[in-house]
Amino acid sequence: MTDVKNEILKRLKDKEEQIIEIRRYLHEHPELSFQEKNTAKYIADFYQDKEADVRTGVGGNGVVVTIDSGNPGKTIAIRADFDALPIQEDSGEPFSSKVEGVMHACGHDGHTAYMLILGETLIEMKDQLKGKIVILHQHAEEVAPGGAKPMIADGALDGVDHVFGIHIISDLETCKIVYCPGNFQTGRANFHVKIQGVGGHASSPHTAKDAIVAGAYFVTEVQSIVSRSLNPFETGSITIGNFDGKGSGNVIKDSVEITGDVRAMSENVREVIEREIRAKLEGMAASFGVTYELNYENDYPVLHNDEETTAFVAHVLKNTEIEEATGVEEIGPIPPSEDFAYYAQERPACFFNVGGMVKDGEVYPHHHPKFRINEEALIVCAKAMASVVVEYLENDGIALNK
Amino acid sequence: MTDVKNEILKRLKDKEEQIIEIRRYLHEHPELSFQEKNTAKYIADFYQDKEADVRTGVGGNGVVVTIDSGNPGKTIAIRADFDALPIQEDSGEPFSSKVEGVMHACGHDGHTAYMLILGETLIEMKDQLKGKIVILHQHAEEVAPGGAKPMIADGALDGVDHVFGIHIISDLETCKIVYCPGNFQTGRANFHVKIQGVGGHASSPHTAKDAIVAGAYFVTEVQSIVSRSLNPFETGSITIGNFDGKGSGNVIKDSVEITGDVRAMSENVREVIEREIRAKLEGMAASFGVTYELNYENDYPVLHNDEETTAFVAHVLKNTEIEEATGVEEIGPIPPSEDFAYYAQERPACFFNVGGMVKDGEVYPHHHPKFRINEEALIVCAKAMASVVVEYLENDGIALNK
Amino acid sequence: MTDVKNEILKRLKDKEEQIIEIRRYLHEHPELSFQEKNTAKYIADFYQDKEADVRTGVGGNGVVVTIDSGNPGKTIAIRADFDALPIQEDSGEPFSSKVEGVMHACGHDGHTAYMLILGETLIEMKDQLKGKIVILHQHAEEVAPGGAKPMIADGALDGVDHVFGIHIISDLETCKIVYCPGNFQTGRANFHVKIQGVGGHASSPHTAKDAIVAGAYFVTEVQSIVSRSLNPFETGSITIGNFDGKGSGNVIKDSVEITGDVRAMSENVREVIEREIRAKLEGMAASFGVTYELNYENDYPVLHNDEETTAFVAHVLKNTEIEEATGVEEIGPIPPSEDFAYYAQERPACFFNVGGMVKDGEVYPHHHPKFRINEEALIVCAKAMASVVVEYLENDGIALNK
Amino acid sequence: MTDVKNEILKRLKDKEEQIIEIRRYLHEHPELSFQEKNTAKYIADFYQDKEADVRTGVGGNGVVVTIDSGNPGKTIAIRADFDALPIQEDSGEPFSSKVEGVMHACGHDGHTAYMLILGETLIEMKDQLKGKIVILHQHAEEVAPGGAKPMIADGALDGVDHVFGIHIISDLETCKIVYCPGNFQTGRANFHVKIQGVGGHASSPHTAKDAIVAGAYFVTEVQSIVSRSLNPFETGSITIGNFDGKGSGNVIKDSVEITGDVRAMSENVREVIEREIRAKLEGMAASFGVTYELNYENDYPVLHNDEETTAFVAHVLKNTEIEEATGVEEIGPIPPSEDFAYYAQERPACFFNVGGMVKDGEVYPHHHPKFRINEEALIVCAKAMASVVVEYLENDGIALNK
Repeated sequence: MTDVKNEILKRLKDKEEQIIEIRRYLHEHPELSFQEKNTAKYIADFYQDKEADVRTGVGGNGVVVTIDSGNPGKTIAIRADFDALPIQEDSGEPFSSKVEGVMHACGHDGHTAYMLILGETLIEMKDQLKGKIVILHQHAEEVAPGGAKPMIADGALDGVDHVFGIHIISDLETCKIVYCPGNFQTGRANFHVKIQGVGGHASSPHTAKDAIVAGAYFVTEVQSIVSRSLNPFETGSITIGNFDGKGSGNVIKDSVEITGDVRAMSENVREVIEREIRAKLEGMAASFGVTYELNYENDYPVLHNDEETTAFVAHVLKNTEIEEATGVEEIGPIPPSEDFAYYAQERPACFFNVGGMVKDGEVYPHHHPKFRINEEALIVCAKAMASVVVEYLENDGIALNK
Repeated sequence: MTDVKNEILKRLKDKEEQIIEIRRYLHEHPELSFQEKNTAKYIADFYQDKEADVRTGVGGNGVVVTIDSGNPGKTIAIRADFDALPIQEDSGEPFSSKVEGVMHACGHDGHTAYMLILGETLIEMKDQLKGKIVILHQHAEEVAPGGAKPMIADGALDGVDHVFGIHIISDLETCKIVYCPGNFQTGRANFHVKIQGVGGHASSPHTAKDAIVAGAYFVTEVQSIVSRSLNPFETGSITIGNFDGKGSGNVIKDSVEITGDVRAMSENVREVIEREIRAKLEGMAASFGVTYELNYENDYPVLHNDEETTAFVAHVLKNTEIEEATGVEEIGPIPPSEDFAYYAQERPACFFNVGGMVKDGEVYPHHHPKFRINEEALIVCAKAMASVVVEYLENDGIALNK
Repeated sequence: MTDVKNEILKRLKDKEEQIIEIRRYLHEHPELSFQEKNTAKYIADFYQDKEADVRTGVGGNGVVVTIDSGNPGKTIAIRADFDALPIQEDSGEPFSSKVEGVMHACGHDGHTAYMLILGETLIEMKDQLKGKIVILHQHAEEVAPGGAKPMIADGALDGVDHVFGIHIISDLETCKIVYCPGNFQTGRANFHVKIQGVGGHASSPHTAKDAIVAGAYFVTEVQSIVSRSLNPFETGSITIGNFDGKGSGNVIKDSVEITGDVRAMSENVREVIEREIRAKLEGMAASFGVTYELNYENDYPVLHNDEETTAFVAHVLKNTEIEEATGVEEIGPIPPSEDFAYYAQERPACFFNVGGMVKDGEVYPHHHPKFRINEEALIVCAKAMASVVVEYLENDGIALNK
Repeated sequence: MTDVKNEILKRLKDKEEQIIEIRRYLHEHPELSFQEKNTAKYIADFYQDKEADVRTGVGGNGVVVTIDSGNPGKTIAIRADFDALPIQEDSGEPFSSKVEGVMHACGHDGHTAYMLILGETLIEMKDQLKGKIVILHQHAEEVAPGGAKPMIADGALDGVDHVFGIHIISDLETCKIVYCPGNFQTGRANFHVKIQGVGGHASSPHTAKDAIVAGAYFVTEVQSIVSRSLNPFETGSITIGNFDGKGSGNVIKDSVEITGDVRAMSENVREVIEREIRAKLEGMAASFGVTYELNYENDYPVLHNDEETTAFVAHVLKNTEIEEATGVEEIGPIPPSEDFAYYAQERPACFFNVGGMVKDGEVYPHHHPKFRINEEALIVCAKAMASVVVEYLENDGIALNK
């Protein structure tokens, strides 16, 4: 086992420049979620003439690559997403986006770059492996409902036993690997409400139903959901990020629109929040004589890392010599949501992070116009995922005592 | 006409000391609303052996005295109330209340005193008058539902054409007479709500329905009724004067009790306020998952002084020489409620005020333990009401051009 | 006196067609407040070659015309405004506005039309009058700070004893004249607040200061100003007509902008409201750790009709035969604000209304794209104002017992 | 080592009846926090004539018993609290409280009972042990500031290396042992606010400063602290458990009193909550023109179980044969606060729970009048604590690899 793994890690190291080249190419050519036609084609083309089964158009723009070792064994899926964001790049990188208003500001270019080279290398070495490897090149992670869900519906996980994924993180120490067993990233919902009252002249409030007043009381009542309806030991948040009641001062507003964002670390919390938001809206309608239209959408679920699967990943990474990695540590849960969560609902899974903090200049968070990553992290991603794949297949799964 | 009136005014002046004596006796022997047995007996006894019909127990403790001139004509009713308040007197008057915790702190003792002497005098002079005089000695003005309503139900206004009444006012210039045509004193309602939630341990809010939180949001929403649901040109107010959520700090309250007071200067405002309080409670129940029991009682109506009747009173008083009076003026509406309003719903009526501000020492408002009145005002009350009675009967009503 | 007045009324009737023609011309050529160059020129040109002193550019675009009878006496000012509104006309009138997006939707065209012909007539008859007449052709009534204030500052009221004005009202019975002694139209203020918090990611509220939440609590607290800080017998209102917190749902808003409109029927109410809004903003800043910038502007004062001056107007109009008028009645106060209020602060004044409801088709309120007036009302305006002018000058003022 | 431990466990089992007898005696004779004179004497008397150093009156009513093995080694402290609650017992137990209104409704009687017998047994066996055992018989756990703090100040932990304690739990499966490394029980604070406004008559709100309205808005703003100022991944709660605004409905309340309870799972959360409550009160004072007096007390800290010490406990209990125990499991944190937290601030410590759910009849939570425990749990407490003591002393501390 060790020999095969070492050989793969060595070959990856030899191709480190290629990973960076691919990443920069993708960085220059970002595409928005659900519009990643060219990126999908680029990926598919990469596998041309390589010994793997390539299925395109999976659940939209997804590309699923299956590498069959020809030997019996488990099937492992590994995922890399490839969509970009509606942001005007201001990073100063020489390979900045060539597309106005679109930018790889979350690192998905890096995910795809390391994954392609890892795929190529696994194909080269496949005869010495067991079982099968399914590479999930996923579109549309950034925008609900996301690409994972339709890819699953389109059979992407058929025959798969376990799923793994990595996210590179711009504000985590470069080349540090971190993981979290159990609930790792929040589930999410969003809602949009239009409150309809009756407008009127500012001097005659009794002839109107003031939509701004109704909406303001609603916002204050929403605060009581987290404070009173959630178990303090659970995690949930509600943000009203949009209160659109623009008007002239001397006319009573007839309607306002409100948009909210919900985060929840358990399905129970998510259900409580939705129930309570609906209750507060009913209360508002009864109190103020207004009506409302609610569009409430639960999008990404809580990302749950299977405990045993995560223990397997931790064990593998702690026992593999990845010289570029600066550590392997357990962390607690983090706020962002991830549609990898859908895979983790279907199969035991583990999603973990690799630090990519730049060493020169200021560090910017994800989704920032000045977002940059340290490309040294890419080889760590590749080696870490390679190690997980090889150990998994060699051990016929995650059983650690083998 | 002038001769009769002058004779009556003269006789009243001669009996001024008696008025004061009676007033002081009543002041020493106050009785709470609906418990005025002795005062009612005192009044009935006063008329014994006088030529008038005395009916006791009218609608409770009311006493109705009818003086029939024997001549054809209109029937005028004049009202004086006689109940006291649950207040421990601290006025320092030598004739202070002899009853622990009960006090004539609103001047009803004065009303009754002048009315008895006026009644006596009218009886003496009745042969020179026309029509009939009905004296309404009313119990229980201070406490809803009041004495006026049951007295009316018990026939007190049968055959009556118009009704008049006076209130002496401790913080109005002594001996000034003021009147207000149209809506003069607010209507009133009161409500009591019990909010029932679910109690719990302070550290586990999600297992409870916090009644204090629900009640607090309700109180804030109530503020929007006056600010948004009333016509700014109309008058209404809502006071939550009781929020009983007493508890220990570390237990979530399962229930709270709230009591509110409503004032309204029109029936429309009263209806809007009731409708909106009910709406806000429905909203609260929907928002916070609590239940409530509401007891909403409309008590005294808006006191509406008939415009023509009030013009008659103003004309009479401006054209009668009452030497003690310091003026006759029109004023605007005032906040307190009065169950004289019920008479005014049934017959054209006018209720007006006479100033009784003390000249020595500090002035205290009605219902204050240090409340005092200037007894000089009593002869003004007697003469003013006498003038209204005589002119009314002589003129066969309120027609001013006669 | 009667002969002169009758002659003037007769001449006005003869020129009724001219009034209508002028009104239609002005209606077709509306100009926005503070931009009424052509209208001002039209007015000034009208008086060319007439025996009157015409001063243009008064306090902006104002035109002040002084007619000197040559005889000793009082000086009366009469006012007509001439600006239009930023509204796209949809009235269907054949003489609709020829200016895109600008419309005489408040009747100022009618005011100016009757006033020009009245001015002409008074000039014709001036030798038979006493004292002087100052015609205030005022620009910019619709937009604070208004034209009245700078015209006064520019001497428009120098030497003037009393001021009178008329507003034609589209939803009042045609040709009915109504007046209100004392406070007639509300004073007004407006405020604009920018609340500055700190933005953040929706999933990390603790790193932000949520400006929407702060603003919402502020709006709810504002409701308590009218409900708790105003005397229920006084009139005031506060409308938050703009709550601009537009954003994407998943970002905590760093700032919101709020615009409010204040109406008050007394200077005391206006002061209380301003004081309390400032207090609530201070409270918000302390509670939520946000900052704010407030721009609070008191604009038009309460329009106070001098009681004696109004009694004079009522007396004159009730005792003048204006055959087109359908009645002369006292009414209560009305909500809109008027910068005639500035004249009334400087001189005893009376502003009254003439009904102009159309008889064919639906009635629309002022400032509505379908606003129309019944032109029959114009002769009533002219005759009513003529009567006031003649009686005033003949009587050397408002003393009614002359 | 095993022999000594087994002998102790055997002796404890032999004395199980005695443990139960003591527990029942204490249950019949409960004393309120800070008033436990008799219980302290009972404890001290128990050790009379036994070979241990007994110090009474430690930090109040505390009793510290030191057992010196005579052999060199570590010093371990073990704690049992002994105060009762102001609750009228309604459990139906034949050995119910004989003291009106006072009840052992939290199981401290059981803690003390097992600890006394354990102490006796350790004294019997002390020559075969190493080091010293300090038994902390603590008064006043139920009421802040608690007994632990003054006992520490009075030297109770002098020379002590580690501290351990057990709580029996009425609604946890009988005889199950559970532990939680790290933060285990919330820290707590409480606050009391008196809001002082200005009273007034219900019909004249503008003359008053309504304390109920100010307090209600404050309660709604408090909800935004947990919802917006805390990190959603942290734990904190605020309960307003007392809103004492009792009054008659028709008088505006001049003052209200509010009591709050704060729970926090980290010192940071506690600081944020205190800062924000103070901010909201400042905001309220500025908004509503009221004043306030705040008494804010941080009482018990977060109870932090030292990770290594807890691992030691878990290891010992999983590797000791306690036949009555039904399991040894790790759990998450729980809401109640515990002043054992003070010991844990001073020394590495572990506080763990033993289930005591009754098998007959309904289960009631702690602090309930019908609270009961299953006495079978007492022997588990004794054996578990004995095991920890013996293993700790034998191993010269918590080093597990010895």
